[in-house]
Parts: sequence; C-alpha cells; structure tokens
Amino acid sequence: MKKNRHPGNHQPPTTTPTVTKRSEKAGLPPGTLIHIGEKSDREIKVTVIDYNADGAEQKEISAINECFYFMDASAISWINVEGLHEVELVQQLGDCQGIHPLVLEDILNTEQRPKAEDFGNYLFIVLKMLRATDDSEISTEQVSLIIGENFVISFQEGLEGDAFNPIRERIKGGKGRIRSMGADYLAYSLIDAVVDDYFVALEKIGEEMEELEAEVVTSPTRETQQKIHRLKRTMIFLRKAVWPLREVISGLERRDSHLISQETIVYFRDVYDHTVQVIDTIETYRDILSGMLDIHLSSLSNRTNEVMKVLTIIATIFMPLTFIVGLYGMNFKYMPELEWHWGYPAVLLLMAVLSAWMVLFFRRKKWL
Amino acid sequence: MKKNRHPGNHQPPTTTPTVTKRSEKAGLPPGTLIHIGEKSDREIKVTVIDYNADGAEQKEISAINECFYFMDASAISWINVEGLHEVELVQQLGDCQGIHPLVLEDILNTEQRPKAEDFGNYLFIVLKMLRATDDSEISTEQVSLIIGENFVISFQEGLEGDAFNPIRERIKGGKGRIRSMGADYLAYSLIDAVVDDYFVALEKIGEEMEELEAEVVTSPTRETQQKIHRLKRTMIFLRKAVWPLREVISGLERRDSHLISQETIVYFRDVYDHTVQVIDTIETYRDILSGMLDIHLSSLSNRTNEVMKVLTIIATIFMPLTFIVGLYGMNFKYMPELEWHWGYPAVLLLMAVLSAWMVLFFRRKKWL
Amino acid sequence: MKKNRHPGNHQPPTTTPTVTKRSEKAGLPPGTLIHIGEKSDREIKVTVIDYNADGAEQKEISAINECFYFMDASAISWINVEGLHEVELVQQLGDCQGIHPLVLEDILNTEQRPKAEDFGNYLFIVLKMLRATDDSEISTEQVSLIIGENFVISFQEGLEGDAFNPIRERIKGGKGRIRSMGADYLAYSLIDAVVDDYFVALEKIGEEMEELEAEVVTSPTRETQQKIHRLKRTMIFLRKAVWPLREVISGLERRDSHLISQETIVYFRDVYDHTVQVIDTIETYRDILSGMLDIHLSSLSNRTNEVMKVLTIIATIFMPLTFIVGLYGMNFKYMPELEWHWGYPAVLLLMAVLSAWMVLFFRRKKWL
Amino acid sequence: MKKNRHPGNHQPPTTTPTVTKRSEKAGLPPGTLIHIGEKSDREIKVTVIDYNADGAEQKEISAINECFYFMDASAISWINVEGLHEVELVQQLGDCQGIHPLVLEDILNTEQRPKAEDFGNYLFIVLKMLRATDDSEISTEQVSLIIGENFVISFQEGLEGDAFNPIRERIKGGKGRIRSMGADYLAYSLIDAVVDDYFVALEKIGEEMEELEAEVVTSPTRETQQKIHRLKRTMIFLRKAVWPLREVISGLERRDSHLISQETIVYFRDVYDHTVQVIDTIETYRDILSGMLDIHLSSLSNRTNEVMKVLTIIATIFMPLTFIVGLYGMNFKYMPELEWHWGYPAVLLLMAVLSAWMVLFFRRKKWL
Amino acid sequence: MKKNRHPGNHQPPTTTPTVTKRSEKAGLPPGTLIHIGEKSDREIKVTVIDYNADGAEQKEISAINECFYFMDASAISWINVEGLHEVELVQQLGDCQGIHPLVLEDILNTEQRPKAEDFGNYLFIVLKMLRATDDSEISTEQVSLIIGENFVISFQEGLEGDAFNPIRERIKGGKGRIRSMGADYLAYSLIDAVVDDYFVALEKIGEEMEELEAEVVTSPTRETQQKIHRLKRTMIFLRKAVWPLREVISGLERRDSHLISQETIVYFRDVYDHTVQVIDTIETYRDILSGMLDIHLSSLSNRTNEVMKVLTIIATIFMPLTFIVGLYGMNFKYMPELEWHWGYPAVLLLMAVLSAWMVLFFRRKKWL
Repeated sequence: MKKNRHPGNHQPPTTTPTVTKRSEKAGLPPGTLIHIGEKSDREIKVTVIDYNADGAEQKEISAINECFYFMDASAISWINVEGLHEVELVQQLGDCQGIHPLVLEDILNTEQRPKAEDFGNYLFIVLKMLRATDDSEISTEQVSLIIGENFVISFQEGLEGDAFNPIRERIKGGKGRIRSMGADYLAYSLIDAVVDDYFVALEKIGEEMEELEAEVVTSPTRETQQKIHRLKRTMIFLRKAVWPLREVISGLERRDSHLISQETIVYFRDVYDHTVQVIDTIETYRDILSGMLDIHLSSLSNRTNEVMKVLTIIATIFMPLTFIVGLYGMNFKYMPELEWHWGYPAVLLLMAVLSAWMVLFFRRKKWL
Repeated sequence: MKKNRHPGNHQPPTTTPTVTKRSEKAGLPPGTLIHIGEKSDREIKVTVIDYNADGAEQKEISAINECFYFMDASAISWINVEGLHEVELVQQLGDCQGIHPLVLEDILNTEQRPKAEDFGNYLFIVLKMLRATDDSEISTEQVSLIIGENFVISFQEGLEGDAFNPIRERIKGGKGRIRSMGADYLAYSLIDAVVDDYFVALEKIGEEMEELEAEVVTSPTRETQQKIHRLKRTMIFLRKAVWPLREVISGLERRDSHLISQETIVYFRDVYDHTVQVIDTIETYRDILSGMLDIHLSSLSNRTNEVMKVLTIIATIFMPLTFIVGLYGMNFKYMPELEWHWGYPAVLLLMAVLSAWMVLFFRRKKWL
Repeated sequence: MKKNRHPGNHQPPTTTPTVTKRSEKAGLPPGTLIHIGEKSDREIKVTVIDYNADGAEQKEISAINECFYFMDASAISWINVEGLHEVELVQQLGDCQGIHPLVLEDILNTEQRPKAEDFGNYLFIVLKMLRATDDSEISTEQVSLIIGENFVISFQEGLEGDAFNPIRERIKGGKGRIRSMGADYLAYSLIDAVVDDYFVALEKIGEEMEELEAEVVTSPTRETQQKIHRLKRTMIFLRKAVWPLREVISGLERRDSHLISQETIVYFRDVYDHTVQVIDTIETYRDILSGMLDIHLSSLSNRTNEVMKVLTIIATIFMPLTFIVGLYGMNFKYMPELEWHWGYPAVLLLMAVLSAWMVLFFRRKKWL
Repeated sequence: MKKNRHPGNHQPPTTTPTVTKRSEKAGLPPGTLIHIGEKSDREIKVTVIDYNADGAEQKEISAINECFYFMDASAISWINVEGLHEVELVQQLGDCQGIHPLVLEDILNTEQRPKAEDFGNYLFIVLKMLRATDDSEISTEQVSLIIGENFVISFQEGLEGDAFNPIRERIKGGKGRIRSMGADYLAYSLIDAVVDDYFVALEKIGEEMEELEAEVVTSPTRETQQKIHRLKRTMIFLRKAVWPLREVISGLERRDSHLISQETIVYFRDVYDHTVQVIDTIETYRDILSGMLDIHLSSLSNRTNEVMKVLTIIATIFMPLTFIVGLYGMNFKYMPELEWHWGYPAVLLLMAVLSAWMVLFFRRKKWL
Repeated sequence: MKKNRHPGNHQPPTTTPTVTKRSEKAGLPPGTLIHIGEKSDREIKVTVIDYNADGAEQKEISAINECFYFMDASAISWINVEGLHEVELVQQLGDCQGIHPLVLEDILNTEQRPKAEDFGNYLFIVLKMLRATDDSEISTEQVSLIIGENFVISFQEGLEGDAFNPIRERIKGGKGRIRSMGADYLAYSLIDAVVDDYFVALEKIGEEMEELEAEVVTSPTRETQQKIHRLKRTMIFLRKAVWPLREVISGLERRDSHLISQETIVYFRDVYDHTVQVIDTIETYRDILSGMLDIHLSSLSNRTNEVMKVLTIIATIFMPLTFIVGLYGMNFKYMPELEWHWGYPAVLLLMAVLSAWMVLFFRRKKWL
C-alpha cells in the first residue's frame, strides 16, 4: 500500500530501499527511463481486452510483441498494465506504439501532476487515483492513459485492488453502450471510474469530520487538534491531486483532437462537472476544518478562563479569612477581643457572613 | 424536510435508510438512473399547464404517455414534476422528449452543482432552491429545468410546499405578460421565483445576525460562538449553492441559443443582477461573521483579564496584611511592640492605611 | 435620513413601518413597481432644466405630461426627481419616455448594485451616493440616471440635501463648458459630483481613524475595539457600494454607445481614475484597520502580562516572608531562636534583606 | 519635506494651513486648476535644456512665452518645472502646448495614482518618487511627464533635492547615448531615475528590517511591535505607489503610440523588469513583516508563560511550608509534637526535604 | 558561497566589501556594466565546447577573440563563463556577438528576476540555480543563457561546483540525443539541469520539515518556532525565484521564435511540467508550515493551561488548610476545641478528608 510519497507530504520516509526518489534523476539525460515510486513485489500484469459491438475477448499476455496482433484488429484494444517496476516492459510497449520517450518517462515517474498532452496520433493523460484506506489515510496511485485511434493503454501502479474491474465486467457483459462506442468512450469510462472513487474517499473523510466536530464541541483534547491538522493536511494533498484534473478534462473538451468524437464530449463534460463538484467539496471541507480549529483554540482559551476562575474564587474567599484568623493569632498583650467570652463565636460568624457574601458576589458575576 | 445532505455539510447522517449516497453510484455505467437524495413518502405529483395568450388549462396526470398530447399543441406546455423517487416516471418523461440519459441522471442526483447545458433542441438547467426553515436552518432543494421550443419541464424534489404557486396563479389569471410570451419567459419566471426566495432566506439570516451581534457585545457565552460558527457554515453552504448560478445565468445571456429570444434576455439580465446581489450579500455576511468572531475572541481575552485583575487585587491587598498579622504572631521572647499598650490599635491602623493606599494604587491603574 | 438599510448591514431594523423590504417582492411578476426603501415624508420634487449654449431655464413641474414639451425642444433637458415613494409618478415618467418596465422597477428598488445598461436609445445607470452624517455614520442614497440623446433623467431618494446643486448653479451661470456640451457631459457631471462626495466621506473617516490610532496605542478600551469594528464594517459597506462602480464607468468608456461622444470619454476616464483612487483608499483603510485590530489585541495580551507580573511580584515577595513569620509563630517548646535577645531584630533584618534581593531579581528581569 | 499626505496614510494632519485637501475640490467644475498638496516656500524653478547630438544648452526661464522659442528648434527640449504651487504658471505652460485641462488638473492634484494616458500628440504619465528620509520615513513626491514629438515637460513638487541631476549631467556631458536619441529616450531616463530611487529606499527599509528582526528575537518590547506596524504601513503605502506603475509601463510598451520608437521599447522593457522586481520585494517584505509579527506575538505568549511559571513555582513551594508552620502554630492543649525535644529540627528537616523534592519536580518538568 | 543577498531576504549584510549593491547603480546611464553581487576570488573560467553529431572538442580559452573561430564552425558552440567579476570579459564577449548592452547589464546584475527576452537573432534567458548547502540553507546563483542559431553562451556566478558537468559529459560521450540536436536542445538541457536541482533542494527541505514536525508535536521550544520561521522565509525566497520561471518557460513554448524548433518544444513542455510541480510543492510546504505554526502556538496555550492548573490545584488544596490551622492558632481565651483531648487529631483528620475530597474533585474535572 502506497501512502503519499510525494515531496509535498510528510510521511516519515519508509525505510525500505524500494522507493526511488525524484532527486536521483538529476543529471540524467531526458528520456532516461527510471521508475520513481514504490516498488511492488507483485508481478506485473498485462491484460488485453479486444472488443467491438459483437463481442469481447480478454487475454493476459507475457511478451510484448503479442500486442501487435491486437492493434491490427478492427476492434478496440484496451491494454492495461498493472505495476511499473519493470522498466523494460514499458519501454517495449512504448516503442511498438511509437510513444515519445518523454511520455514513457512520465509514466514511470509516479510523482507527476495530472495533465493531458496531445501528440497528434495519440493523447497522453495522467491522473491520480485516490483510495481511503482502512486507517482513514488517503493513498494515491498514478494512472496514465494513452488514447489512440482504436486503442487505449492504461498504466496503474498496481499497489492495491483493481479499480477498473467494473468496466471490464461491463465490456465483457456488453452492458451499457461501451461496446458500441470508440476508444475515446473507453478512456472516458476509465477517467469516470477514477473520479467516482473520489466521492467515496470524500464521503469517508466527511464522516470522520462529523465525528471530529462532535468531539471539538464536547471534549476537545490535544489529539483532537492533531486530528484536525491531519485532515487539513490531507485536504492540501487532495487539492493538489484533483485541482489540475479540472483543467485537464476541460482541455480535452475544448481541444480539437480528432481522437475524441463529438458524441463523447458530452460525457467528458459530465466528468468535468463531477471534478468541479469534488473540488468544491474539498474547498468546503477546508473552510469547515479552519472553523473547527478556531472553535478548538477558543475552547482552549475558555478552559484557561475556567481554571483562572476557580483559582480566583478560592483565593478571594480564603485570603480574607486567613487574614482574620491571623489577626487574632497575634500575641499583643492588650487585645480586648481575645478576652471576650463570645469573641470566638463572633469571629466565626463574621467569617461565615464574609464567605457567604463572597459567594453571592461571584454568583452575581456569573462565575459560579 | 431535507437538510443539506451534501457531502460538504456535516449534519449527522439521518438514520433513516431513505437517503441514497453519491458513493453508491461508483462503478455503475454512466446514464444509470439512480435517485440520489432523500426519499419522500409523498406521492409524485405531475402537473401539466397548457397555455397561450387566449387561455390556460391545468391537469394532473398519472400516465406519462398523456404528455405527447400536450406537446403537439400550439400552446406552451409546462410540466411540473414534484418528487424524484420514482425513477421510472422520470425515465419515461425523458424518453418521450428525447432527453439525453446523462441529463436524466443529473436530474435524479440531487447533489448537482447549479449548471446550464445546451443540447441544441433543449436547454438543461440545474439550480438550488433555498428555504429558511422555522428553526433557522437553511434547507435546499434541487430544481431542474428542461427548456424546449414550446415546453418547459421542471423537476422539484417536492420536500416542502410548492414555490411555483404564484407563477401558476399568474398563468391562470393572465396577470403580467407571462401568457403572451414563450417558453423562455416561463423558464425565466421559474428561475426568478427561485432567486427571489434567496432574498427571503438572507433576510431571515440577517435578522438572526443582528440578534447575535447584540449578544456578542453584551453577554457572550459559549453558545454565542457556536451560533456564529453555525451561521458561518451556513454561509459556506449558501455560497456553494449560489456562486455557480451567476455563471449559469450569465452563460444563458451570452450563449447564442435560438431557444432564448432577444426580448427575454433583458429579463435574464435582471435575474443575473439579483444573483450578483445575493452573492454580494453572502460575502458581506461572511466578512461580518468573521468580525463577530474576532470580537468574541477578544472579549474572551478581556474576561480572562478581568478575572486576573480581581485575583491580583485580592492577593495584593491581603498578602501584606497576612504578613503583618503573622509578624506579631511570632513567639519571640523580646518583641517590644507586643508589650505596648497601643500596639494592637497601631497595627490595625497601619493595616488600614496600607489597604487604602493599595486601593488608591489600583484606582490610579484603572483596575478598579 | 437613511442609514444602510441594505441586507448587508446590520442596523437594528427601524421600527417605523415606512420601509418596504426586498423580500416583499417575492412572488410578484417582474416589472411590478414597488418602492423598496425608506419612505420619506417630504413631497416629491420634480425639477426640469432646459439649457443650451445660449441659456438655461428651470421649472418645477407637477404633472408629468408637461415633460413632453421639454423633450421636443432642441435644448438639453435635465429632469431631476427627488423622492421615489410616489410610484405612479415614476411610472408616468417612464411611460412617456418609453423606458423598459424592468428599469423602472430597478429605479424604485433602492437596494440595487451600481450598474450600467445600454437599451439602444438610452443608457441606464445606477450608483450610490455616500454621505458622512454628523455622528460619523455613512448613509447612502441611490441615484439612477437615464441618459438619452438630448435628455437626462435623474432619480434621487431625496432623503438629504441636494448634492446636485453646484451643477445646477453651473448650468444657470454658464460656468465651465457644461452648457456647450451634450447630455453625456451632463451625465458625466452628475456622476463626478457623486464620486467627489466619496472623497469627502473618506477624509472624514480618515480623520476618525487617526484619532482611533492614537487611542489604540495610548489607552485602548473595549470601546476602542468596537469603534474599530464599526469602521471595518463601514469599509465592507463602502466597498460594496463603490467596487462595482469601477466596472460601470470603465464599461461606459469602452462601450460603443452613440450616446457618449468621443469628446466626453476623456472625462469619463477621469471619473474612472477617481473611482479607482477611492477603491484604493478603501482597501488601504481596511489594511490599516486590520493592523489596528492586531495592535489592540496584542496590547490586551500585554496588559494581561502586566497584571500577571504585579501578582507574581507580590506573591514572590510576601510568600517567603509569611512563611518566616509563621515559622517563628510555631509553639514548639524547644526553639532556641525564640529565646535569643536579638532574635526578633535578626528576623526583621533577614526579611528586609530577602525582600531587597527579590526586588533586585525582578529589576534584573526587567519586571520592575 | 512632504510625508504621505495621501488619505491612505495616517500621519497626524499637519497644522499648517498650506495643505489643500482633495475634498475642497468637490462641487467645482472639471478642469478647475487647484493645487492639492503641500505648499512649498521655495520659488518655482523652470529649467529648459535644449539638446541634440551636437550639443546641449541649459536656461532657467521666468516667463512662459519663452518656451515657444525652444519648441520651434529642431533639437529635443526638456522643460523641468520644480514646484506646483503657482497654478498660473502651469496653466500658461499647458495652454501654449495645447494640453487638455484635465491633464493640468491631474498635474496639480498631487494625490494621483500612477497612470499613463495617450492624447494622440502627447503622452501623459504620472508617477511617484520615493525617498527614504533621514528618520527612516518614506516621503513621496509626484512626478508628471508630458512627452511630445520633440519635447518632454516634467513637473516635480520640488520639496526635496533634484533627483534628475544625473540625467542633466549626462545630457550636458554627452555621456551615454542620451543625446543621440529622441524625447522618448529622455522620458525613459527620467522614469528609470525614479525607479532606481525605489531600490535605494527599499535597501534602507531592508536594513531597518534586519535590525528589527534581531530585536524581535532577542529583546522584544512594545516599541518593537509599533516599529513593525509602522513598517507594515509603509509597505501598504509603497505598494499603492508602485503597483499601478507596472501597468503604466507595460501599457507604454504595448501601446501603439508613434511617440515611442521601437528602439526605445527595449529600454522601457528594462524599467518594467525593475518595477516588477520592486513589487516582488515589497510583497516579500510584507510577508516577512507578517512573520515577524507572529514571532512577536508568540514571544508575548511565551513571556506570560514564564511569569506564570515563576508564580507557580513560588506558590507551590511556599504554600505547603506555610501550612506546616501554621499547623504547629495551633494552640491545642494536647499536641505531642510540640513537646518533643527534636520537634523543631525535625519540622525544619521535613520542610527542607519537601522543598528539595519540589525543586526536583520542577526540574523534571523543565520549568527550572 | 553566496547566500540570498537579494533585498528580499534578511541575512545580516556580509561585512566584506566584495558585494556591490543594487543601489550603487542609481544615477548611472542604462547599459553601464557593473557587477552587482558577491565577488569571488576564483579566476574566471571560460570553457568552449564545439560539437556536432560526429564529435566534440573542448577548450579552455583565455582571450576572447578566439571565440570567433568557434562561431564560424558549422558545429554547435557552447561557451560557458564561470564568474562574472571581470566586467571587461563579459563586455568583449557581448560585443563580438552583437549582444544588446542592456542584456550584458542584466547578466552582471545578479539580482535579476527569472525572465526571457527575444532579440530576434538571439534569445536571452535568466534563471536561478538553487543549492541546499550543508547547513541546510538555500543558496542561489544566477544563470544567464544567450541562445543563438548555432551557439549557446551560459554565464554562471561560479560560486560553487559546476552544475553543468553531467551535460558536458553527455556531449563528450555522445550519450542521449544531445549531439544530434541543435542549440535549442542544449539550452533545454541546461535549463533542465537547473530545474532538476530544485527537486534535490526541495527534498532536503522536506526532510528537515519532517524532523521539525515531530519536534513540534513532542517537545516544542522557542528554537522550534524560529526554525519554522526560517523555513517559511526560505519558502518565500524560493517562491520568488521559481514562480517567474513558469511564465518564462511557457513563454518560450508559445513564442514563435525560429530559434526553437518544433521538435524541441516537447522538451520545453516537459521542463514546464517540472517547474509547475516545483511551484506546487513550494505552495504545499507553505501551507504545511502555516499548519505547524498553528500547532506550535496552540501548544503554547496548552502549556500555559497546564501551568495554571498546577497553580490552581496547589492553591485550592492548601489555602483552606492554611485557614484551618490559622483558625486554631488564634489566641481567644474561650475556644473550647483547643481544650479537647482529641482536638488535634480531629483537625488533622478533617484536613485529610478535605484534601482527599479536593483531589477527587480535580480528578473528576480531569485536571489530575
């Protein structure tokens, strides 16, 4: 499971030597293929689905030269690669489709910003898959898409379960219109699946925020504040992952690529709306978290205030009393009160009255 | 009554199983119709009004095939649907008008952002109806409009009373110019009715803010702060609902759709002005609420200060006195003062003078 | 006198029933004329000035049909209406000039945002007149202008003295170039008069801020903070009134209306510069007020600190002393010091030395 | 010396009646020439330099009609006016060059925002000269330029030393390319001289900030905070003076005026870069000052904390001790300890141990 | 080693007289060549590499006229200058290539903002090289590039090790496509090398932030806060250095210069992506640092709270006890309790119970 290895988030660096850092690329010529990201132990899995309106055929392949066969077919080919740690495989796949070396470099560098680039005969899109893990952390995975005339190649890091399974089922089962549409609709479906997962992650965070909110008002502790800050950081992180996606999709809509048909543009507009809604929600969450922090801080102030009041009440009641008992503890020879028979009860009465008056005073001040 | 079920607002989740969440859609093919939102128990009500300059006719219909009849007429048809929980009805209505499946999906998903889309032979508009409920909460309801050449279909969630009644009355009574104008004017009237309700909601909030403001200055409590935060959150929520509307309406104005006549554009410009005014007011309220929070926080500081002063005054007066009485409580054999006849009154006098001097000192420091 | 009845500002609602609120319009058809704003008891005053390079003639009229006469003349006509509470009068005036009903509605609704609209044969402009009243409140009044080929109609709420008097004098006296220019120059003069008043209001606020600033540094009280907040709120309010004006005037400059001659555009550019300067000053004031609030808050902290120090000094000096006198107040049988002849003076000396040392300690810590 | 008389900065109003305020213009017709700004006692100085590639001639003139002579010459004429308080002189100069009355009005009103306007046969530019005075205040002076085909007229307020001297020397000495270039290059040189002075002012402020920074960390006092706020205010003020300049110069670059040759545009681009750098630095300074304020405030908190700790340590040590000595000061008849021979030393020992334990406790808590 | 001598960062001014300040240029004619920046003692090193697809030749040259030889060759020439303190050398180099004097001035002034300018037959680019030095400070060095048809001249300040070595190796070794591409690709490689170093610097800062974060949560001290502020300042500084680079590179992409071939533009787009990623990370770091400051401040509040609680607990327990023992220290003649045999133990018991009750009370309040 991969957790935010991006420079922008401060997880303590995993001690395993399987993460290659971005800085190790400094000084290398452009187009040098190096996998930057977490190494997985899983084997790389390449799945090819060939489909058209009539049917669909799925294969797991091992050698890349097989690809050529699929590409010649009149059907739409979807090649899905799970796992990026075998650089040669990506290289071969890229070479046999004539992909620019910089694109291959970007696919392997899992710290990309979401982006879309038009290379004439294919489109290259990078996006981030979000997943709320069990311990309410958000993990990300980079997904790269290459969209050609009649094929889509998708690259996943393959760290967690396969998010594209429902689409695979839909193709195999012939559900929806996916089999009768082109490669652009397949690309849309993949992007839509990724964006739909954002809602799941956001709802999970939303639930956590609700709990936190109750906690802030009723019994805030130091942990509360740390939780708020952790969520705030998650929001910074999500924002960075989702915000550029908006531009990416709106760029696809407007761009005059022959690879995206007029008919599919309506669908991209739909994903665009979803992305904007995700961004809206992230911004709203940020605002709400800031508000929670304010409440937390002022409840800290409030508590200091409460403590101060207790101290002041105690001091204000007992200091005068202590003075009085000290007064009659003096050893002067001529102190007439000390000789009085009712002196002691009188002093006790005096002190009782004084205390009562103090208590009333604090009541009136609403301190008690 | 529906209260902000949007992911962006943290009402504790209603325990009833009647709310479908956005995340339940993840993995389904696009165009799958699922009602996302609160289920109402009310029956769905479909009202059709057929009108032209000469007259108006209203019907409640039950079977959707009746629609076709209205559409053929030379009159303007307004089909109003209250309640979205019968997915099949919406499906039938959409199919008989040739509405794109994504539009139907958006109509049923009540967590849409306000938006406008032009599908050539019809326009699709989503907006949010606001209503200040009795307990000074703001509830929202999604309103979707489909505007064709000579018809308007409006979808409401139907959770609360009918906001479109005055328009219905105007059509039936032939008041204003509504009966002599086209479907675009009807759409304008519906949007205008929705935006007019924003002012009512804002004025209600405004009154609450006035009360709160007095409270902040005179007698702030913990509840005051929570009220301010609640209002701040409401503002975040309103902003999210209204802000995109501005773009929607200005888009309608500029867009070159044959469905909106030149004559009606003046009216849309008018609604646009109202929307901008609503947004302005929301921003102003936010600024004012921030100011109130600042006042509240500094009044907390102020109160700590007051408490501290009381403590300090008490301690500063009684500590020296307690020291003096302690002094003459010592048991030394040779303490000449103790033997003096006027020793005791002298000490009393000394302490009185000291106290008076202290009080004067605090007066001069403006602590008393 | 009208004070900020806008929803965005929280004056306690005036109890007089003479204010119609914006929400009372909800549900009415567009173009329904209702005066929203404060009702004045003053009678409505309609003044018509007819002028050209040769001379000027002023009349107060009572019946609206007289207008037609002026409009036919080859001269420039300026019709000024003070007071909006007679809806019929505005209606008649609008009808005889062919003004769009929505424009009349906007004129009567005194909660408009500043705006400019081009209706082909006339321009419609709304702006806000500011006036610093004696008790250093800012009151606003809505001014609407309708600019035609050879006439200008201006509507004021007429709550306070007439701001357009100097212009009237200039026309009558033939001072400046006003009589030799067209209706557009007259409109410019009116807008310029309104914007010039902004400077007067800002200078008044500026003076108040200077006083406040001295107060914040020397002797801040709770009232200081409330004054700062009041000014801050006034700034929010001013901003809302002036900011859109910038767009309005720059729109007039750029727009290709035949109603504004090339020669006059230089003048509008001049007003534009003034408006930008007003906005700049408002923003600067806001920044300064925020700074003042910061100073105020940290001076509160500072004062808590001072109080704390006094308490700590007192406690630190007297607690050890009280302990010592308590020590020799113990009743042990065998306490050799008590028997010493110089015991008492020795203890007194010890305590004096201790106190002196404490005072020195606090001096070194710069607490005294 | 003139210090920020602009409404946006709150120097206490100078008591001398020599400052005319902006508000005194309200109600006057546009183009009325009134000097708004500080009156200088210095006489107005008008210097004319006539130069071309062959030589340069300088004259101080007294009567304005002499100007005409210079203008006829084939050489470039630079007329520099120091002092604006003689309105007639500016009027005459303007009239003989055909300058628009609004331009003359702007020249005399020293509270202009920096701006550039193209009047076809001449360009009008306003900018602000900054000068760090000895007491580390920033004073401004307005500089207006009128750039014609073969002449430049510059207006300074003339409150302080002449900033244009180096340029004068360069013209007379024939250094650089200035004598072989046109009036546009002269204008560039003047603007460049003004912008170069900004760097001097900023470096002076930078040095002050360095000192302040050390002060904030080592020994912050109330004065520190006031200094920070003063610098912050200066930054607000500088920002207002420099920010619009960027637009002005970039406008000159892009604008298609025949008065600025292609060759000179490179130079304007250079000044543009400098202006952007000045703005960058101002923004950076603002950020740094905000950071300093944060440090200051938290060091205040820290100090409260320190004071609190001292108090708590004293109280925690002496309160139990005082209790113990009080205990053995009780007058019960049967208190066996009082009779013990080693009672007194035992109690002393007990108290010593208790105190030592307390000190250790506070050590462990890192309070000592 | 050069550390941020820019006006925007407040390192105490180095006392060595080897730094020329920007302000020393004020008053000099444009195009006057003055080296502004830190003087190095190193000798200036001029390296020329001549290469084409067939081979590469490297020379260190001493006299500038040799340059001409290289320029005539059909190969690509890369002239790298390390060290800027010999103004004449830069002058000669500029003159023999026909570089505009303002460009030479900018090369020597090491306080430039990153920028790109198109002079027709060459492009001029300024950027900032970042280097995280050992003591975790960020030092910058200005790099200027002049890109011609078949040559690139690069100027470095030469304060630290040569960042362009890997590129030199690649050229000599013929690795990658560099030798078969034009001067534009060489320029790209140089810029890419600079941007790659940003990632190294950012990762170093990232690691420091992780350490700091742990510190903030576990054991915050005054130093922690100063470290946070130092990092915040570094971020302000980085932002200023990197932000304009984005515009520079996107400008190169879009600009229609014949010096940058279509083939190379893909590479510039790649550097652009990296720059945006760097900016994103900087913004994220800023947000995170703000969050850390918030945590730090509220942990200060928390600690004050803790101290207060200790004080209050001590006072609340011992004040009543001290009162009681004082009570029985009074010297009244008739105090029956004093005579009781079990009086003393009874009082001790009473006080024990009271203390226990207090402790329970504080437990319940969660103070203990």
